[in-house]
Amino acid sequence: MDVVVNAATSADGKLSNRRREQIAISGPDDFDRVDDLRAESDAVMVGVGTVLADDPHLTVDESTSAVRTERGEPPQPARVVADSRARTPPDARILDGVARTYLLVSEAAPTERVERLEAQDARVITVGDDRVDLEDGFETLATEGIDRLLVEGGGELIFSLFEADLVDELSVFVGPTIIGGREAPTLADGDGFVEGFPELSLESVERLDRGVVLRWRV
Amino acid sequence: MDVVVNAATSADGKLSNRRREQIAISGPDDFDRVDDLRAESDAVMVGVGTVLADDPHLTVDESTSAVRTERGEPPQPARVVADSRARTPPDARILDGVARTYLLVSEAAPTERVERLEAQDARVITVGDDRVDLEDGFETLATEGIDRLLVEGGGELIFSLFEADLVDELSVFVGPTIIGGREAPTLADGDGFVEGFPELSLESVERLDRGVVLRWRV
Ligand SMILES: NC(=O)c1ccc[n+]([C@@H]2O[C@H](COP(=O)([O-])OP(=O)(O)OC[C@H]3O[C@@H](n4cnc5c(N)ncnc54)[C@H](OP(=O)(O)O)[C@@H]3O)[C@@H](O)[C@H]2O)c1
Ligand SMILES: NC(=O)c1ccc[n+]([C@@H]2O[C@H](COP(=O)([O-])OP(=O)(O)OC[C@H]3O[C@@H](n4cnc5c(N)ncnc54)[C@H](OP(=O)(O)O)[C@@H]3O)[C@@H](O)[C@H]2O)c1
Repeated sequence: MDVVVNAATSADGKLSNRRREQIAISGPDDFDRVDDLRAESDAVMVGVGTVLADDPHLTVDESTSAVRTERGEPPQPARVVADSRARTPPDARILDGVARTYLLVSEAAPTERVERLEAQDARVITVGDDRVDLEDGFETLATEGIDRLLVEGGGELIFSLFEADLVDELSVFVGPTIIGGREAPTLADGDGFVEGFPELSLESVERLDRGVVLRWRV
Repeated sequence: MDVVVNAATSADGKLSNRRREQIAISGPDDFDRVDDLRAESDAVMVGVGTVLADDPHLTVDESTSAVRTERGEPPQPARVVADSRARTPPDARILDGVARTYLLVSEAAPTERVERLEAQDARVITVGDDRVDLEDGFETLATEGIDRLLVEGGGELIFSLFEADLVDELSVFVGPTIIGGREAPTLADGDGFVEGFPELSLESVERLDRGVVLRWRV
């Protein structure tokens, strides 16, 4: 499976402010770029932290959806959430039925919450004892026909993906603002590396809106 | 006074790892760029956190120093540390006598530590009750002939400078690695903004070494 990570950060590497509120970092041209990335993907993934903070929809625009249909693909890419304890709210926008939605949960997810989400048509995949095992999860997703996965954050999930060596490409829109804050989410949080830092190779640099998109190969 | 902030970050916005160990983020071309920035500056500033973590020297190369002398300038730019409680070790490299060194301290700095540092030829400037008042400190530095100040970090100091609206330009070398870590220092730490985010304008984008230098006007 090909895994592309994409996110927008402030010039100081933050995904949002310390209150985890969504901040307008990019602009219309970057929204179009993200729409294109989604259009080329079989599924779009986030961590449950992002579902709880932003309640994203993760769909493509109507015109893009029409192009997908023409290509013989599902009109919308599937959606995937890493959610060890099945904390996704049953009324989350990713469960609105316009696209297939996979929830990766762990053995520790309470059955009753899992059943409630399955009743909302969530396809629940159990991988890992206490926390979602991302490698196993991706193997199962691959058997479901997901060959190209776009990960849109947040920083906890992105760090785990780098730690498990599951990322093929990283693109970052760096925007014209400073958010600051020791506790604000960054592009890669988690425990962090102390050695053996993943090495990237800079593929392209493109000015867009009032910022710049950096594309790295991992 | 013209204030330029310069730092090197990983692709995820970190200045170092969670243990505050110095990480090789940039390369030889970026070292030359920083040498040029220092050469054009009357003084180079860091926070005491950086002095304690990295024990930097903050000087220019010999050839650059010769050029400065030819221009009728001191061979080395002065050095400035924001250090409310005078925690700079008396044997720190910034007190090696090859350049003038200013310590900005607050009223809360213990007299005995201040005297010990003055004995090492540190020029101590007291501004602020409990913490260094950067605006007052910069006014005093201006009366000492410092018109162009280069700030090299760390993230606590940089955030305070943005908060006090004292930054004119920000340049960031973004390097080909992921450091990660909720607790790793980032380009701008402090409490962070929750609204009224400083707006930047992207002046230039230049590939250098295996990364890219982003220059922003504030
Ligand atoms: N600017 C952007 O592009 C952008 C994009 C996305 C998000 N954001 C912002 O980022 C913030 C949310 O980021 P976040 O880092 O808090 O949350 P996140 O990465 O979206 O989700 C983290 C959660 O995912 C779950 N998870 C399950 N398996 C995991 C694994 N193997 N590794 C890591 N996490 C796993 C964990 O909760 P369980 O233990 O309960 O499973 C974890 O707490 C919000 O403020 C949002 O606005 C910004
Ligand atoms: N990659 C790079 O380019 C780069 C550059 C520099 C540093 N670094 C890394 O950054 C880390 C150090 O950064 P840091 O953020 O911990 O330390 P820092 O910003 O260098 O210093 C912070 C300290 O400065 C003092 N200070 C005095 N007045 C202040 C004010 N008004 N606002 C803010 N601080 C004030 C405070 O200590 P008192 O309260 O005692 O005064 C504060 O704790 C190290 O890991 C270092 O390796 C990396």
